[in-house]
Amino acid sequence: MRTGIATVCLSGTLKEKMQACAIAGFDGIEIFEQDLVTSPHIPEEVRTMAADLGLGLDLYQPFRDFDGVTPDLLKANLRRAEAKFKLMSRLGMDTILVCSNVATATIDDDELRASQLAELAELAGDHGVKVAYEALAWGKYVNDYEHAYRLVEMVDHPNLGTCLDSFHILSRDWDTAPIEQINAEKIFFVQVADAPKLSMDVLSWSRHYRVFPGEGQFDLAKFMGHVVRAGYTGPVSLEVFNDVFRQSDVERTAVDAMRSLIWLEEQSAKWLASTSSETAAGNGSASRRRYPMELATLPKVNEPAGFNFAEVKADDTAQLEKLLGQLGFEFEGRHRTKDVQLWTMGQARVIINEQAASHSEPAIAALGFDVDSPVIASARAQQLKAPVVARKVQADEEVFQGISAPDSTEIFLCQGSPDGTAAWTHEFGEGLEHVSSAQNAVIDHVNLAQPWQHFDEAVLFYTSALALEPQPFAEVPSPSGLVRSQVMETTDGAVRLVLNLAPAQQAQSARKTYQEHIAFAVGDLVATARSARDRGLEFLQIPANYYEDLDARFDLEPGFLATLKELNLLYDRDANGEFLHFYTATVGSVFFEMVERRGNYDGYGAPNAPVRHAVQYDSLHRA
Amino acid sequence: MRTGIATVCLSGTLKEKMQACAIAGFDGIEIFEQDLVTSPHIPEEVRTMAADLGLGLDLYQPFRDFDGVTPDLLKANLRRAEAKFKLMSRLGMDTILVCSNVATATIDDDELRASQLAELAELAGDHGVKVAYEALAWGKYVNDYEHAYRLVEMVDHPNLGTCLDSFHILSRDWDTAPIEQINAEKIFFVQVADAPKLSMDVLSWSRHYRVFPGEGQFDLAKFMGHVVRAGYTGPVSLEVFNDVFRQSDVERTAVDAMRSLIWLEEQSAKWLASTSSETAAGNGSASRRRYPMELATLPKVNEPAGFNFAEVKADDTAQLEKLLGQLGFEFEGRHRTKDVQLWTMGQARVIINEQAASHSEPAIAALGFDVDSPVIASARAQQLKAPVVARKVQADEEVFQGISAPDSTEIFLCQGSPDGTAAWTHEFGEGLEHVSSAQNAVIDHVNLAQPWQHFDEAVLFYTSALALEPQPFAEVPSPSGLVRSQVMETTDGAVRLVLNLAPAQQAQSARKTYQEHIAFAVGDLVATARSARDRGLEFLQIPANYYEDLDARFDLEPGFLATLKELNLLYDRDANGEFLHFYTATVGSVFFEMVERRGNYDGYGAPNAPVRHAVQYDSLHRA
Repeated sequence: MRTGIATVCLSGTLKEKMQACAIAGFDGIEIFEQDLVTSPHIPEEVRTMAADLGLGLDLYQPFRDFDGVTPDLLKANLRRAEAKFKLMSRLGMDTILVCSNVATATIDDDELRASQLAELAELAGDHGVKVAYEALAWGKYVNDYEHAYRLVEMVDHPNLGTCLDSFHILSRDWDTAPIEQINAEKIFFVQVADAPKLSMDVLSWSRHYRVFPGEGQFDLAKFMGHVVRAGYTGPVSLEVFNDVFRQSDVERTAVDAMRSLIWLEEQSAKWLASTSSETAAGNGSASRRRYPMELATLPKVNEPAGFNFAEVKADDTAQLEKLLGQLGFEFEGRHRTKDVQLWTMGQARVIINEQAASHSEPAIAALGFDVDSPVIASARAQQLKAPVVARKVQADEEVFQGISAPDSTEIFLCQGSPDGTAAWTHEFGEGLEHVSSAQNAVIDHVNLAQPWQHFDEAVLFYTSALALEPQPFAEVPSPSGLVRSQVMETTDGAVRLVLNLAPAQQAQSARKTYQEHIAFAVGDLVATARSARDRGLEFLQIPANYYEDLDARFDLEPGFLATLKELNLLYDRDANGEFLHFYTATVGSVFFEMVERRGNYDGYGAPNAPVRHAVQYDSLHRA
Repeated sequence: MRTGIATVCLSGTLKEKMQACAIAGFDGIEIFEQDLVTSPHIPEEVRTMAADLGLGLDLYQPFRDFDGVTPDLLKANLRRAEAKFKLMSRLGMDTILVCSNVATATIDDDELRASQLAELAELAGDHGVKVAYEALAWGKYVNDYEHAYRLVEMVDHPNLGTCLDSFHILSRDWDTAPIEQINAEKIFFVQVADAPKLSMDVLSWSRHYRVFPGEGQFDLAKFMGHVVRAGYTGPVSLEVFNDVFRQSDVERTAVDAMRSLIWLEEQSAKWLASTSSETAAGNGSASRRRYPMELATLPKVNEPAGFNFAEVKADDTAQLEKLLGQLGFEFEGRHRTKDVQLWTMGQARVIINEQAASHSEPAIAALGFDVDSPVIASARAQQLKAPVVARKVQADEEVFQGISAPDSTEIFLCQGSPDGTAAWTHEFGEGLEHVSSAQNAVIDHVNLAQPWQHFDEAVLFYTSALALEPQPFAEVPSPSGLVRSQVMETTDGAVRLVLNLAPAQQAQSARKTYQEHIAFAVGDLVATARSARDRGLEFLQIPANYYEDLDARFDLEPGFLATLKELNLLYDRDANGEFLHFYTATVGSVFFEMVERRGNYDGYGAPNAPVRHAVQYDSLHRA
């Protein structure tokens, strides 16, 4: 698959954009006209830059408001087009995007439109240019890709074809199956963009909220599958207008963009395979049907089986040690060669890393996930352009495959075991021969703060590299603004990751000033809380008003309510079960949560999150 | 008018919110339930705090999903309601907001709804509570205020009335005139919110984008006029869910909120006066009709007649002096007693202030506006809670009335004169007896960067204190993101202010790092540019690609195009006229623009703004 991206997706100057695209490994780019007009580089220089960078200049865009106009306007439009065709020749470009008219069209007549497009195609032919005509979702008369293609067929000129853009097609809910009936020679270009499902006017949605494939909710694998079946072999190019991407670091965004195409390529191949076998049941060869477009595959991963460990770093670890001890964790020893400690509670393993820079406060540094094959998972992540994390190991120690997440948390791909143990723990202390007396526990979920520039990137990262599934996002009120909360989890809930986007005032400071946490699930939360209290744990203090409201909402048994209140426990209930939890005080930017899931409760106590935020805000501001 | 505000409008804890409301001068507040539930203060403490602060606790809210339910659910809902009634008694509160059911209603039957509301009213009566029933815009069965009122009439219980909320009424475009037919005794509460006209689902619109009156596009004066004519005398309270206000400094936001109610009060009185005289033409006494609600008035201002001056400050003013001299400004002398210089070009007056803190770069510090009466305008601004700016003056010098704008630019209210001169200029140099030989010029517009937290506040500030009119806002692409641009101007265009909201990456740094500028209008821009070039002015260099595109778009006369290119002039044209302009290089965070308006061109060369942003970005990054 030939990969491409429109320069309008990225921040910076045309030169900066082109360099970032080359570094990220794109085959070609679309030049967005404004980026050229505002550039100090004349067309010949841009052409040379592209050649030096190994970037194809695949599409010049956009040319607006051409068709369905009065004769006078047509004449002016052809003049305007010819100027651009001459410019393209200086750039060495041969394809231009012409959007259906949104502003100046006054005549709704396909015959007239076809004759005007024929004139344009003829003129384009004189300059060696191919016109890719695209139906914008908000085109005045032409807003459906099938309509645009009918016009292309009517004109039947070698220099006129169509451009298919997933946003304009999927935002209008047009059926994508008829794409397969389009003559592939007439598909001059394909643009892809994803988007969250928003109910707003399609123009604003398009101009501000598009995201890269895998970061929104469109079924792009199906869209691309139809395109591939049509026999298209040209560029698949991202055109994503997004307010955040336009402000973010250009090289980061280009890599995020490239990752989305690599992932889309795999997903498209999967969709093709799955639908081929459906339609040709009993005919084994059908699923191996080959298409003109080659779709690369990636090393396969299944979703992780669980958390292997969580790692917290600090230069002064005393507070962390105290907190874990009070929660009931046992100190299992120090590592043979590294300045790290292992603390466990059943299968919940927490590493305290003492190698942090001096004066750095406790913060979540790394997460380990149990995968079928760390090597295969690491190969996949690297093909998805995840940065590799190197850790020094001795000859006889387990080698961890590590990658860096968009928020710079280190992600380690570990060999899981059926009994939930981890071989590397033998590198600690006495060899861990003793059986832990503590209550069993597992890591239930981890809550990571995300910088606002990389929130969408993080969703794609965990989706593509770790096969986690994004859930519908939520917004939680806090005293300093709404916190956007995105759950990523496995089908069985064994791995649950919560990505939190803090309000801007907090996010402006370094990322780690926003609090993050690790939650552990136990079988008997009340007992755990009592023991922790006896060991002197400082609980997050829950206001009395909360318990009154809880009682008003749930009509709880008075003894149970008293227990909750006595132990600072929070409570939630839904049709599937119950949820009890408590929080510790915060050290540095980290706190811990203990939870108990009763029945099939599958949430995170969302109604209680505002209480947690308010109390933490209050302690922070009183401190 | 009794003023109020819901605690959900503001950031911080309940206590911080209450303190800010008291400081801003609100009569009362609505307690948003979550703010109480998450507060460490028990109801009795909240009651005492409110009493000490002189704040009424006017409404407890919201109580959700009560009506139209099954008998089982009704029982649970009444139990839940009684818990809240008891809580209210501890708070000393007597009115609760009950919203129409959005989630659990299953029965669409007004008789049933009325009977359930009657049970609620009866229970409320037992606890001395009044129920204000409100139709939410997205209520499942009840979403129209007239429907809600019909239910109130059906029940006919002294403890059941309705709450009118401007958002829920105006977002659905319901006719507001029937409000006058509502029995005032049955209007238990009135909530007001403004909003920009957005085409999105009403729930998201409501929860994220509401703004204070005067900051959006709803006709709130008319809404309030009908409420006043109905005979309502209770609180008029703000309920504004806004993502930005929730993150902003609580005291600032509370003052902004209070300003919006003071302004709304005046606008409502105006609307009443204007519509009374219409309906009772020939009956002079009708316009003096009195209503039960007293509406306070403000000192009147007309829109300013023009800019009186602009002031730029710096600790090293050499670059500024050079730039103004090159543009054709004349140095008129230093002030008798202050470290400031006056530079003029016809009626365009620029003050260079050398009193800036050391190492501070040139930045726009102040603007003077010509008003009919500086004292009246200042009195108005102060009643609108604008912070006063104090400047030292000597006995024989003109006293400037100054207020501080939300972005901290100092705004001076000056005595205009019919001939465009300013008396205070005699305090400079020789007394300005000589006639300036320079080309005549005026300040055409000033472009100020706004911090994102105070953008809406700035719109209301200039609307209410200076009678400028907000125009539809635009978004301009720049290499570091979209720049939101809001023009505020007078009807005749004599004063034009452009408020720019820079992308977040820039806005994160101090406000003044984003470039601002002052534009001067002259009669012959080409001559001005040639003279400036001869004096060595450093123009903002416009790329060659721009002129090619300009020619493609406008088919310009070749000689004219060559002149534009030679002098780095930008060009725009619309149906009303033409616009020529050029920019200087930037010093500190300030640059200047010279413009020539031909015919009735009324814009700002918006199509050229991306070029300006790109070239400035490029110079900044090369520097």
